[in-house]
Amino acid sequence: AVSPGVLPLCRQPPAWGRAARRSSGLSLAPCRAFSNNKILVELDESSGVATMKFKSPPVNSLSLDFLTEFCISLEKLENDRACRGVVITSNVPNIFSSGLDITEMYGKSTEHYAEFWRAVQEMWLRVYGSNMVTIAAINGSSPAGGCLVALSCDYRIMVENPKFSIGLNEAQLGIVAPFWFKDTFVNIVGHRVAERSLQLGSLHPAPEAHKTGLVDELVPEEKLQERAAAVMAQWLALPDHARQLTKSMMRRAVLDRLVAHREEDIQNFTTFISKESIQKSLRMYMEMLKKKKH
Amino acid sequence: AVSPGVLPLCRQPPAWGRAARRSSGLSLAPCRAFSNNKILVELDESSGVATMKFKSPPVNSLSLDFLTEFCISLEKLENDRACRGVVITSNVPNIFSSGLDITEMYGKSTEHYAEFWRAVQEMWLRVYGSNMVTIAAINGSSPAGGCLVALSCDYRIMVENPKFSIGLNEAQLGIVAPFWFKDTFVNIVGHRVAERSLQLGSLHPAPEAHKTGLVDELVPEEKLQERAAAVMAQWLALPDHARQLTKSMMRRAVLDRLVAHREEDIQNFTTFISKESIQKSLRMYMEMLKKKKH
Amino acid sequence: AVSPGVLPLCRQPPAWGRAARRSSGLSLAPCRAFSNNKILVELDESSGVATMKFKSPPVNSLSLDFLTEFCISLEKLENDRACRGVVITSNVPNIFSSGLDITEMYGKSTEHYAEFWRAVQEMWLRVYGSNMVTIAAINGSSPAGGCLVALSCDYRIMVENPKFSIGLNEAQLGIVAPFWFKDTFVNIVGHRVAERSLQLGSLHPAPEAHKTGLVDELVPEEKLQERAAAVMAQWLALPDHARQLTKSMMRRAVLDRLVAHREEDIQNFTTFISKESIQKSLRMYMEMLKKKKH
Repeated sequence: AVSPGVLPLCRQPPAWGRAARRSSGLSLAPCRAFSNNKILVELDESSGVATMKFKSPPVNSLSLDFLTEFCISLEKLENDRACRGVVITSNVPNIFSSGLDITEMYGKSTEHYAEFWRAVQEMWLRVYGSNMVTIAAINGSSPAGGCLVALSCDYRIMVENPKFSIGLNEAQLGIVAPFWFKDTFVNIVGHRVAERSLQLGSLHPAPEAHKTGLVDELVPEEKLQERAAAVMAQWLALPDHARQLTKSMMRRAVLDRLVAHREEDIQNFTTFISKESIQKSLRMYMEMLKKKKH
Repeated sequence: AVSPGVLPLCRQPPAWGRAARRSSGLSLAPCRAFSNNKILVELDESSGVATMKFKSPPVNSLSLDFLTEFCISLEKLENDRACRGVVITSNVPNIFSSGLDITEMYGKSTEHYAEFWRAVQEMWLRVYGSNMVTIAAINGSSPAGGCLVALSCDYRIMVENPKFSIGLNEAQLGIVAPFWFKDTFVNIVGHRVAERSLQLGSLHPAPEAHKTGLVDELVPEEKLQERAAAVMAQWLALPDHARQLTKSMMRRAVLDRLVAHREEDIQNFTTFISKESIQKSLRMYMEMLKKKKH
Repeated sequence: AVSPGVLPLCRQPPAWGRAARRSSGLSLAPCRAFSNNKILVELDESSGVATMKFKSPPVNSLSLDFLTEFCISLEKLENDRACRGVVITSNVPNIFSSGLDITEMYGKSTEHYAEFWRAVQEMWLRVYGSNMVTIAAINGSSPAGGCLVALSCDYRIMVENPKFSIGLNEAQLGIVAPFWFKDTFVNIVGHRVAERSLQLGSLHPAPEAHKTGLVDELVPEEKLQERAAAVMAQWLALPDHARQLTKSMMRRAVLDRLVAHREEDIQNFTTFISKESIQKSLRMYMEMLKKKKH
């Protein structure tokens, strides 16, 4: 996907290098081994468009394993000349992604929290900074980190079902969205909508999400993939080089901000999540989720 | 209102300390003495919601005395564990607040201008940086500094009467809104609406104010307090700690900018307002207001 | 147009001085010689409003000569006490301006590219930083640099003909809009609309341009000049001094950014445009335009 001479949007040699990746818990095992695990990746070489389908039931939660596979799959596509765009969607009914896996944030070691958070950062840096055209085909609910995945794409199409909702609802759980979640959100919906939505931890039903600009369009479920392909074709009609440089110009400030404060952000996360009060909140939340199931 | 471990949004020890406050003209007299003077404060301990009613006829103008009482009342609520939110409204028919008291800016000493301006800054730092949920229930017109008070809250509900208008109309008087008035405005309506509205010194009738996003919703006058209570309950449903940290994340950059340039901003104001041409403009404006009354 | 004591919005003594202008290729020949060449300038001294009509058929492209004349005409009006506002419109049917003249960017010397780019920058600094009220009366299509001229004004009125389109479509040509084109655009339509529109190189038909906020209003062609005059009267009702300072407060950050990086921006442009691949793209584009004509 990278034309010669076009650097990835996030130039940061150590973080993107093999050594840094190893130390961050991402190993470079062959891609095929991962591809049929939690994410199904199909590349149509004739159109240059890949589809990534999240298939990690029950709710496509972003565990450390999922994030690792996601990053490796993205990197593989990014480096594949035959691939110019990727559609991200879900293979699980009614859910796009439920967001960060709470079990990774509860009752673990500080080292584990740090490793997990680095993988969350890595995922965002790769999606938001991708040189490929990225389209989120949102076929289910998408709270918190699931919403972040969608926000980091170039374009968002959501199934018009009002039972599906999307938003950065961290405040509802007693936690705070990191500044780079916020920056990504503000870039899309503006400061005022973001301020209110983040403080209230709002989950916006699809029609409201469309009205506020959180998603770009709504379609009936049976039209979703067809529409994603049509939008992709429209974006791929542009010369890659000019489009990539333009995207970088729009996003670099926000990407650079995390890159500059990455270790500090990991430190903040591990300190915050290790607090007794926060661990207690998470335990209560998990218990509530368990009861809901029964 | 401040949970243990949650710092006020504006951490700036000297400026918030007793000494700084004394030198800025705000004395720490007992609150009760002020509460029944220019602002009526009622705290409902069962809901944790206070109501501040401006009752400084004829137009609730923001005089030095008014601002002093306003800041002390806010500080008292901020430090009261029983209080989590405040509704700001007017007890004077047809006017929310007419804004800064022009008599404080005309024919006085440089020292007086400086003291007055510091009090205006202090008021904004306290409202925009409050840890409490702040809702403006705008039951009358609200030009200039009156608009700033509303803009600094978390949510704005305005009576739908098109005779009531709101806006930063400083340019109409030949003066310029300070950068932090502008920053607050841009955070709500975006750069373009702010640029046009500030250059034209627009006063937006309630329906237009709603359309541009300057206020969040319109209600009939008799429903105003009921609706404010309902919105407050919605905001108070969130855990204070997460909501406060989120609010701080959204507002800190703009708050810090004034804190960093506070003395310079006072200097700019006193120099500007002392100019013969500006003093003349204000005199003509006051004479026009007097004639209007007769 | 400049009241005593009011500095032009862009204070940068060397760049605005006579010497700097000479070295940038702009000579200070008497204005009248230019005024009847590519731009028709009429000043109505009773209203204080000038009209600039682009009359450089076939498409009012922004050549070095055109830009030089444009800057000198603007400077003359800026320094004329009798002039407080300017309406910018086209004298050529169906086109406002086609943008930068591609022939200035193809097959020329590095020195020529640098001289040309400095003139483009100078034009933007003068229009976006003007102390006058500037209204674009857009009576035809306005791609790329033509769009930039309109975006740099205080207000945009466009003929409601859906055959007329406007946008920063650089990406379509394989090139990238400079950061200050982008900054100007973001200030008007916000980050999200700008990101999408710039990446797709969108040319928005008039109704869509209005809906996205790229233009402020649409009128029938026969009402355009009348409406421009009415809007101008509304803006001129404000005291010049307060309006100018407010405009400066809103625009200075973006203006200062180019001023601080001006030479670097010229260097980037000349390097980019000199690339063989870009020269090839431009040649193909020019050949396509030629074929279209026949």
